[in-house]
Amino acid sequence: MPDQRPVDRPTLEAVAARAGVSRATASRVVNGGDGVRAHLVEKVQVAIRDLGYVPNPAARTLVTRRTGAVAVIIPEPEIRIFSDPFFSRQVRGISRELTANDTQLVLLLVEDRGDYDRIERYLAGGHVDGALAFSLHTDDPLPAIVRRIGMPTVYGGRPGWTSGPGEPGEPDGEVAYVDADNRAGAREAVRYLLTRGRERIAHIAGPLDQTSAADRLSGYRDVLPQADPELVAEGDFTVAGGARAMAELLDRRPGIDAVFAANDLMATGALRVLRERGRTVPDDVAVVGFDDAELVAETADPPLTTVRQDIEGMGHMMAGLLLETLGSGGRGGRPAPGPVITSTELVRRVSA
Amino acid sequence: MPDQRPVDRPTLEAVAARAGVSRATASRVVNGGDGVRAHLVEKVQVAIRDLGYVPNPAARTLVTRRTGAVAVIIPEPEIRIFSDPFFSRQVRGISRELTANDTQLVLLLVEDRGDYDRIERYLAGGHVDGALAFSLHTDDPLPAIVRRIGMPTVYGGRPGWTSGPGEPGEPDGEVAYVDADNRAGAREAVRYLLTRGRERIAHIAGPLDQTSAADRLSGYRDVLPQADPELVAEGDFTVAGGARAMAELLDRRPGIDAVFAANDLMATGALRVLRERGRTVPDDVAVVGFDDAELVAETADPPLTTVRQDIEGMGHMMAGLLLETLGSGGRGGRPAPGPVITSTELVRRVSA
Repeated sequence: MPDQRPVDRPTLEAVAARAGVSRATASRVVNGGDGVRAHLVEKVQVAIRDLGYVPNPAARTLVTRRTGAVAVIIPEPEIRIFSDPFFSRQVRGISRELTANDTQLVLLLVEDRGDYDRIERYLAGGHVDGALAFSLHTDDPLPAIVRRIGMPTVYGGRPGWTSGPGEPGEPDGEVAYVDADNRAGAREAVRYLLTRGRERIAHIAGPLDQTSAADRLSGYRDVLPQADPELVAEGDFTVAGGARAMAELLDRRPGIDAVFAANDLMATGALRVLRERGRTVPDDVAVVGFDDAELVAETADPPLTTVRQDIEGMGHMMAGLLLETLGSGGRGGRPAPGPVITSTELVRRVSA
Repeated sequence: MPDQRPVDRPTLEAVAARAGVSRATASRVVNGGDGVRAHLVEKVQVAIRDLGYVPNPAARTLVTRRTGAVAVIIPEPEIRIFSDPFFSRQVRGISRELTANDTQLVLLLVEDRGDYDRIERYLAGGHVDGALAFSLHTDDPLPAIVRRIGMPTVYGGRPGWTSGPGEPGEPDGEVAYVDADNRAGAREAVRYLLTRGRERIAHIAGPLDQTSAADRLSGYRDVLPQADPELVAEGDFTVAGGARAMAELLDRRPGIDAVFAANDLMATGALRVLRERGRTVPDDVAVVGFDDAELVAETADPPLTTVRQDIEGMGHMMAGLLLETLGSGGRGGRPAPGPVITSTELVRRVSA
């Protein structure tokens, strides 16, 4: 019969004894080593390694007022999170930066609005030091929640929510966020299609309650202010949504000779419908996507010309901004408000 | 300038006053309502709703010794977690069951072994009441960690790890787990290929340090104990790994007329290589997968015959077992040891 008792864990006293230092010195090393001479820090660290000591995190939290964990919140159904490589790349960028700073990433899924009460309890419960949130919609309750509980938060994507102190639809002036220059990226895509001689350029927009989708549509309109409104259809950032929008557009305006889709997944849905309807890409209809997400744009048939954004890098920056705040201001700190905007780049492949 | 102070939160005292009950009664309702008459429970609940009261979770934890959160740990690179629909379906099953019980799902990513120190600190820190872990490999340190800290844990997949008290490779007799009958499912797949007149049936195995892969290989060998060992190649449960294994098998034994792959993703990799080498499926080579995972088997070209396992249901059962334990035994409880095994079902499509 196996032993069912938990194995005894080495204590801080055992670490101190092995290192030949006082318990207070050992404790200071465990909590960062401030004010301890380097050779003693090293002795304690060796003892920690030798004994396999793990600090009691509850006690550690009392000293440092930190949990060493950061929540990542993505208010999308898990089916989207797991099927759109945008999310995994953003999470990867976040994860790498947090790991490099020995901080635990805690992913919280939000399937529907009813989940927010529970998420608020969890966030308010002192289980994480801060939060990173992305893919918010304009009516998302999360910004009001993190403001109410004073949780340091960095957002992915320009805020467009209406629960802030500003007017509905206005950006919340006090938040920290990282975004790509969606509008400039969209302009570049549409201008490129124009230079290739395309004359009836349609746009498959993302869900317009997300600023990334709204900004890409604005970029399209910047270049084609007179475009026929029937040349724009709203998708939902999924393959199926892109296919539906493409079918709609072809039904409305069969003469379309180019499509700019607001993300790569919708562009692949469009490619499928164009193939089914006997249009060749790029000869009959040129297609440009957005994201250059892993395993989508490059492996599409034909490979997609697309607007690359540095998705992983943005995740990295979000985490970095938050950690900076937590490092300087402690738990009550608030990230410096305002945007960090990254540039985009047009990647030319076969589809346009 | 927007107001930067966190909004004042309603207190328990305010709830009690509004409901016209004592603070003690209000507190009992917040913590489950035991021993409080139904009409008072309702009064307090109305007051909670009206005021938008959120319990102070730290205080609540002191009373109930619960965080209301459960960790889900998947020791796979996030690139695999986000690209294999098996993971999202298992997480969905878990998520639905936890949500139905007002329990927060906290997903912890494990990119490499170095992450385990941090995960141990997080788990030991009292931030979750229990853990669900799946896709473990035989040398995974997680089982030893959760035993050491006494964390109630339910596993997905038959334990095969060597860090338990048993002999290396022996299952750990004291753990609770949920699995599909992988061996019987594999036998059914191979027998089906035999009934279709196939004579040189190859197997693309998963990584053999996972019991799901080892058990499916055992099922293949149960039916074909005399099979040429060169007809088995090890993949890694990814599309690319399946493609590599298929290429290897065709190089070694060009006369193969059927392949049983240990999951659908590897089967789609095999389909691609067979097409590239000019073999038609199913006429030249029949292909059977395993999982019947969303958006893979059904949409493969041609659609895959596969062994369906109830992935979402298994996630549901894992969460249910853990919640049962937490409900009865409290934080120190241990799930009843032993397996819950679900049956599989052969789903016939075009590929075999």
